[in-house]
Amino acid sequence: MTKVGIIGGTGYTGSELSRVLCAHPEVELAALTSRQNAGKKVSDIQTFLKGYTDLCFTEKISDTKGLDLVFVATPHGVAIEEVPSLMETGIKVIDLSGDYRLKDTAKYKKWYGHEHTDSKNLKDAVYGLPELFRDKIKAADLVANPGCYATSIILACAPLFKEGVVKKDIIADAKSGTSGAGMVPSPRLHHPFCGESVIPYSIGVHRHTPEVEMGIGMFSGVDAEVTMVPHLIPIVRGIISSCYMELKKDMSDEDIAKIFEKHYSKEHFVHYVKEPSIRAVVGSNHAHVSSNVIGNKVVAFGVLDNLVKGASGQAVQCMNLMLGIKETTGMDTPGLGV
Amino acid sequence: MTKVGIIGGTGYTGSELSRVLCAHPEVELAALTSRQNAGKKVSDIQTFLKGYTDLCFTEKISDTKGLDLVFVATPHGVAIEEVPSLMETGIKVIDLSGDYRLKDTAKYKKWYGHEHTDSKNLKDAVYGLPELFRDKIKAADLVANPGCYATSIILACAPLFKEGVVKKDIIADAKSGTSGAGMVPSPRLHHPFCGESVIPYSIGVHRHTPEVEMGIGMFSGVDAEVTMVPHLIPIVRGIISSCYMELKKDMSDEDIAKIFEKHYSKEHFVHYVKEPSIRAVVGSNHAHVSSNVIGNKVVAFGVLDNLVKGASGQAVQCMNLMLGIKETTGMDTPGLGV
Amino acid sequence: MTKVGIIGGTGYTGSELSRVLCAHPEVELAALTSRQNAGKKVSDIQTFLKGYTDLCFTEKISDTKGLDLVFVATPHGVAIEEVPSLMETGIKVIDLSGDYRLKDTAKYKKWYGHEHTDSKNLKDAVYGLPELFRDKIKAADLVANPGCYATSIILACAPLFKEGVVKKDIIADAKSGTSGAGMVPSPRLHHPFCGESVIPYSIGVHRHTPEVEMGIGMFSGVDAEVTMVPHLIPIVRGIISSCYMELKKDMSDEDIAKIFEKHYSKEHFVHYVKEPSIRAVVGSNHAHVSSNVIGNKVVAFGVLDNLVKGASGQAVQCMNLMLGIKETTGMDTPGLGV
Amino acid sequence: MTKVGIIGGTGYTGSELSRVLCAHPEVELAALTSRQNAGKKVSDIQTFLKGYTDLCFTEKISDTKGLDLVFVATPHGVAIEEVPSLMETGIKVIDLSGDYRLKDTAKYKKWYGHEHTDSKNLKDAVYGLPELFRDKIKAADLVANPGCYATSIILACAPLFKEGVVKKDIIADAKSGTSGAGMVPSPRLHHPFCGESVIPYSIGVHRHTPEVEMGIGMFSGVDAEVTMVPHLIPIVRGIISSCYMELKKDMSDEDIAKIFEKHYSKEHFVHYVKEPSIRAVVGSNHAHVSSNVIGNKVVAFGVLDNLVKGASGQAVQCMNLMLGIKETTGMDTPGLGV
Repeated sequence: MTKVGIIGGTGYTGSELSRVLCAHPEVELAALTSRQNAGKKVSDIQTFLKGYTDLCFTEKISDTKGLDLVFVATPHGVAIEEVPSLMETGIKVIDLSGDYRLKDTAKYKKWYGHEHTDSKNLKDAVYGLPELFRDKIKAADLVANPGCYATSIILACAPLFKEGVVKKDIIADAKSGTSGAGMVPSPRLHHPFCGESVIPYSIGVHRHTPEVEMGIGMFSGVDAEVTMVPHLIPIVRGIISSCYMELKKDMSDEDIAKIFEKHYSKEHFVHYVKEPSIRAVVGSNHAHVSSNVIGNKVVAFGVLDNLVKGASGQAVQCMNLMLGIKETTGMDTPGLGV
Repeated sequence: MTKVGIIGGTGYTGSELSRVLCAHPEVELAALTSRQNAGKKVSDIQTFLKGYTDLCFTEKISDTKGLDLVFVATPHGVAIEEVPSLMETGIKVIDLSGDYRLKDTAKYKKWYGHEHTDSKNLKDAVYGLPELFRDKIKAADLVANPGCYATSIILACAPLFKEGVVKKDIIADAKSGTSGAGMVPSPRLHHPFCGESVIPYSIGVHRHTPEVEMGIGMFSGVDAEVTMVPHLIPIVRGIISSCYMELKKDMSDEDIAKIFEKHYSKEHFVHYVKEPSIRAVVGSNHAHVSSNVIGNKVVAFGVLDNLVKGASGQAVQCMNLMLGIKETTGMDTPGLGV
Repeated sequence: MTKVGIIGGTGYTGSELSRVLCAHPEVELAALTSRQNAGKKVSDIQTFLKGYTDLCFTEKISDTKGLDLVFVATPHGVAIEEVPSLMETGIKVIDLSGDYRLKDTAKYKKWYGHEHTDSKNLKDAVYGLPELFRDKIKAADLVANPGCYATSIILACAPLFKEGVVKKDIIADAKSGTSGAGMVPSPRLHHPFCGESVIPYSIGVHRHTPEVEMGIGMFSGVDAEVTMVPHLIPIVRGIISSCYMELKKDMSDEDIAKIFEKHYSKEHFVHYVKEPSIRAVVGSNHAHVSSNVIGNKVVAFGVLDNLVKGASGQAVQCMNLMLGIKETTGMDTPGLGV
Repeated sequence: MTKVGIIGGTGYTGSELSRVLCAHPEVELAALTSRQNAGKKVSDIQTFLKGYTDLCFTEKISDTKGLDLVFVATPHGVAIEEVPSLMETGIKVIDLSGDYRLKDTAKYKKWYGHEHTDSKNLKDAVYGLPELFRDKIKAADLVANPGCYATSIILACAPLFKEGVVKKDIIADAKSGTSGAGMVPSPRLHHPFCGESVIPYSIGVHRHTPEVEMGIGMFSGVDAEVTMVPHLIPIVRGIISSCYMELKKDMSDEDIAKIFEKHYSKEHFVHYVKEPSIRAVVGSNHAHVSSNVIGNKVVAFGVLDNLVKGASGQAVQCMNLMLGIKETTGMDTPGLGV
């Protein structure tokens, strides 16, 4: 069976990858790295995997031979150090960090704060949003898995840009559950601080801003300008991004609905709905898109589970495409609903 | 001592009024009406008032004689039936519903769905946002207490319109705790439905939309156009409204800050801060306003406790002004902080 | 393929059954009844099932022919009216209500408030807790699916009674997420009321009390006496029951651990762990059991997702056993973890 | 005016003290220490105090002269180093840590892990639970302010021991909001970990265990044996402790109610109620006690806001008693209710 590994197996996206891959019928999860937990049983650290894997964490991914594909689930800046050697040995790679998302290295430096040192692989990396770039992903050796906010905003806006019905400005007021911020405790994620509050952060300077502009641009050929304000919400999983755009001409709710239906009606994981619901998609790789016309504007909502369609589920969806496996394999379950 | 009463004493705004008025040193809470609980002790129904009032609910406000001022804390549409007779007998009135907010009866009919039957008093009603209309409130016999969302949005936007630095469009992406929806159980407020979700509702059709436009217009003389989308957030108390406007010319964070400081630095209850915090104001009549310039746009945040500065606290603030009592009396306590 | 149906398809346990059964590879979900929604598409009401079923709700289960097994997911008291006719036509039944749990009709009347009218089928009904009564379930035509609290408490206590190490008294301090209370809005489940609170209810009079005593008794032959206090917790899914018992003699943590390991080490869905975690089991049919000796007492924790192992997942587990399908089929996924 | 200071002004109990003391009409908050923030304005760090104090943090409490009373709001182990010098200079002290609660230094060492180095002052320290030890507090120079869990459990159990109606064993199943754990981020308090979970911790080894036994013993003369299991609940403020005891003889709900009414009916801050409610007391110094007889057992609930009646509010209540101020001064407001 195809063997896959995960660099950075203890973080939230890493453990979510394990959760999905353990139950995947056509690949074998053969390696998880963790400097801190090397040698320990994975299911002793991530007790929800008890009964699903007997693996122990290893120190380095190269400790495991015969891997066909590796997920890099490390913080930004680490992936550019791991990916080159993996690519050289012919292993396919899906990077869940932001390191291979922005094609423009100047933008990368501006938003990530340091030089990009792997422009060679960056050139060939494919942005892993299957509903928009499916064919490119199938042929890719290196996929840059999209950010959680970016996925929700692009899914909600890209079809409208593609059809040319909106002006270039997007106000993206994004609301995310706390698991999106990762597993390292911090004052902002401290329950007494955030548990009964709504906290805007990275106002106008969130790194997914240029990613959204690039994603929409690649898909539609139109330059979008995104004003993005993320808000931390006291739920664990889930994102809803409320995206406001100005219509070029008068349109009805039905006009807009037709555009979304045209783009998504054949998709398994993305649904255009009347009332978007985080609970309907939580725990699954499904996403909701919804829209309402308000005067000369349209608000489009993108809703998903930040750890699944916003990260690890989408990565497995990309893996399936890259490996010639049926796209939905291992993730064909509905959201929790309640 | 001045005697005040509350029509509709069992709802959330009614009980919050009781909470504040019970501890108010210069007025006596002398009547609470409740058809359902008439005859019962208030503190048996609202156990948090135990030790603070020996009142029993009465059926009608006219059962109590000698009232100087009455708060009307009923659903929309009921106030217009209660207010005329109160006004005739010379009792001052503060209406917490939406019935006396919109000066334009055509707009009232459009947004509230029925005719306004008391245009006589409507003409004299004063919009009760003290930081903007203090002098008018002092002289008023009938105050229309602002809505919770409206207060948060107006506080965040009105100074920028007054100074003429923004264009007319406001995108108001508002997020509210669940107590704003009142005490009647409903599917949307059912904990399993909303407890781990964020739910947009009344998209583009919320009744506070024309109220915000009117409030900003009266204060600044400029016509604002508001696109408002409220979102239900799984917290009990608190609102944060993220308001996006386009700047007429290049301005810095400091330029905007100066405008807000000019308007609010002498206010006791409204604070311009760097990082707005729901927890800092919850349980108090304080509000936070904050702002960030993003390119050619500015996002301004309005933050408050929807039951206090967004409803009953503001009503008591108006009462103090109307009765010649020091404005902060009975509410001069900080927010919970944590 | 084996065809199954659900009576009461719109409630939380009904929709959770749909969620699991839609993705089950060896049965076909062929009928869901709902008086209110008869004729409507299931996935229009339960949007998270979009893409998973094209079924429409029907009015009566008899509208669908050829069903092999029917789940009854109705309120208590309704099942005893539905089950007899199903049994007569040779359809196997799993009842998720409390109607067929208590063997003693006098106890049923005492705790449920009305006569039991189907003592014939009650006699043959098997209590559907697979880890304790697997063989009986395999042979059953009618299974009484256990209550959510009951499952959590029995799993945490029964092995200790079976091994005879504890005295008869159990203090079961149970904490449940709000979805356990069903989908009908009520004052207690209203978010502003319960969203930042912990609310004890049905103190000493919860219907799962006699069920726990019966379950432990059937398994261990020992009469337990349960003092049960449920508490509503502001989470959507999940139960943790903290069960206090007195040890007959001095025992160590390790002594107790051995007992649980003996009973559960070969189980796929029940795990004895050091630190019980609701998040580790949420969204899955897994349960955690954990224990600590404190002086002459032991506290044992039972943890599960009330809608899965506490209701619909356990029902499907029973179905698999009754139909000769591998026990874990359709539910072999880990909990969410985060 | 009487001048008071706080050692450890940045933690949650320290800032809650500031919140209450800033609005106290008969004392002046004259000093707050914080090594980290020395020199900074208090209201710049704790923005909810804006408008209520112009103080800056100082490094040491001795930097401020003329203090009459000092609150020590430091971690355990620090107070025993601060208190001796304060006492020597004749300043009254209220210690909010656990350092002066346990009279038995051997027990202190066992539960706190290090020697008690100030047995001189320990001897004279008074346990600061006003409803039980009011007269001693009035005369005290050093008060050991009770722990949050301890207050809730003692209030719920002590009267029953005093009247001799229960056996010695208490099962105290305590549930606390997250603010009780303090302001330092940690994995357990990380929102994605605890935000949708219930987490038992310090099982059988929590430091409030001997404190409860001592408090009940001092008040009733009876030795209680407490089995205590705290659970972390995803709310910010609030504790409910469910305390199970065995009755010595048959008693009714009314019999038990009479005992509690006898002890608490004249208290301003402690209320015996039918349905205990965290929301009814949150934000205030009030506490609820409630009880239900279940067979031969009684469950008594103690409910309070862990930061107010469970910490800083109770400390100010003690301060009022020690300074001859009316006991309720500065805290005479109802809980939030909603």
